[in-house]
Amino acid sequence: MRVMGVDPGLTRCGFGIVDTGRGREVAAVAVDVIRTPPEMDLPSRLLQISTAAEDWLDRFEPEVVAVERVFSQHNVRTAMGTAQAGGVVALSAARRGIPVAFHTPSQVKSAVTGNGSADKKQVTAMVTKILGLATAPKPADAADALALAICHCWRAPMLARMAAAEAAAAEQKRRYEARLREQAAARKAGAR
Amino acid sequence: MRVMGVDPGLTRCGFGIVDTGRGREVAAVAVDVIRTPPEMDLPSRLLQISTAAEDWLDRFEPEVVAVERVFSQHNVRTAMGTAQAGGVVALSAARRGIPVAFHTPSQVKSAVTGNGSADKKQVTAMVTKILGLATAPKPADAADALALAICHCWRAPMLARMAAAEAAAAEQKRRYEARLREQAAARKAGAR
Repeated sequence: MRVMGVDPGLTRCGFGIVDTGRGREVAAVAVDVIRTPPEMDLPSRLLQISTAAEDWLDRFEPEVVAVERVFSQHNVRTAMGTAQAGGVVALSAARRGIPVAFHTPSQVKSAVTGNGSADKKQVTAMVTKILGLATAPKPADAADALALAICHCWRAPMLARMAAAEAAAAEQKRRYEARLREQAAARKAGAR
Repeated sequence: MRVMGVDPGLTRCGFGIVDTGRGREVAAVAVDVIRTPPEMDLPSRLLQISTAAEDWLDRFEPEVVAVERVFSQHNVRTAMGTAQAGGVVALSAARRGIPVAFHTPSQVKSAVTGNGSADKKQVTAMVTKILGLATAPKPADAADALALAICHCWRAPMLARMAAAEAAAAEQKRRYEARLREQAAARKAGAR
């Protein structure tokens, strides 16, 4: 499976491509940070991010895009820009029929460091180690994008198993209720 | 001038097209509300909004798109969705080289009702009156989209005049400073 991880942002938007191997094996394919100047108008910034995302999707053909789920941040203005950058990347994937998964920062940190409140340094160090990179990816947004992709690679099988288990449970419940209805109908027929 | 007003939102996104006439004359060309189901995944919702926006831009060919500037709302989750919907519409305009202007809710209310804190009913009533519509546009998102377009029609000349005045002031300052530098240089040359 090939995953594109995205650490969304207007000023810096991290893109990372990771391939899964056997078991928990993961390999880095590409990583970069797209920058747009803060003095540029918002529509032009979003267009640059969209164009870069479409270029990466066409060039690397990931099967799934993993985007950081934005939560309320201290700075509401920054959070809005982050949400818009992430939305534009999700749109580029949707245009191509590529599924998009969202992971929270703590899910990502937890997946790569085992600690949901790890700092940026720890995330970068673990990403470098997990992917066997010669040098640490810089800036932090590049490491975060790779961390998101790794997180998805490792969480996806678990999420798929959970979805399958939930579907099986729902099916079992449906059958049980159908049997109850049949028995009630049989009792009614017997009482007549 | 033809303006497309957009009241952004994931569940309901209002689109309105307004043409300017002489002076403050404005005429409604089209209005509609694009809806996406809350149970649909975010990328698909953004794709539907993007597709609708592109369809309107190609069909009505507005010269400018006026989008409501989203501020922090009580519900951060809703604000994020609103920001993303607005971002996606701004992106569609940027793809076509159509300029995008942002107006705050209070600027819009102030423009159409003369009161920056008017309620939805007042905005709808004034939009209906200004555009000479036989029936009030419904839901409120439709009226808001038209209000945004009207607001832009009326604010644009003022904003252009302000920008021209600022540019003129900057040019005057530049010339004054250049003259000061020349005089200082002349004094220095005289003192030698």
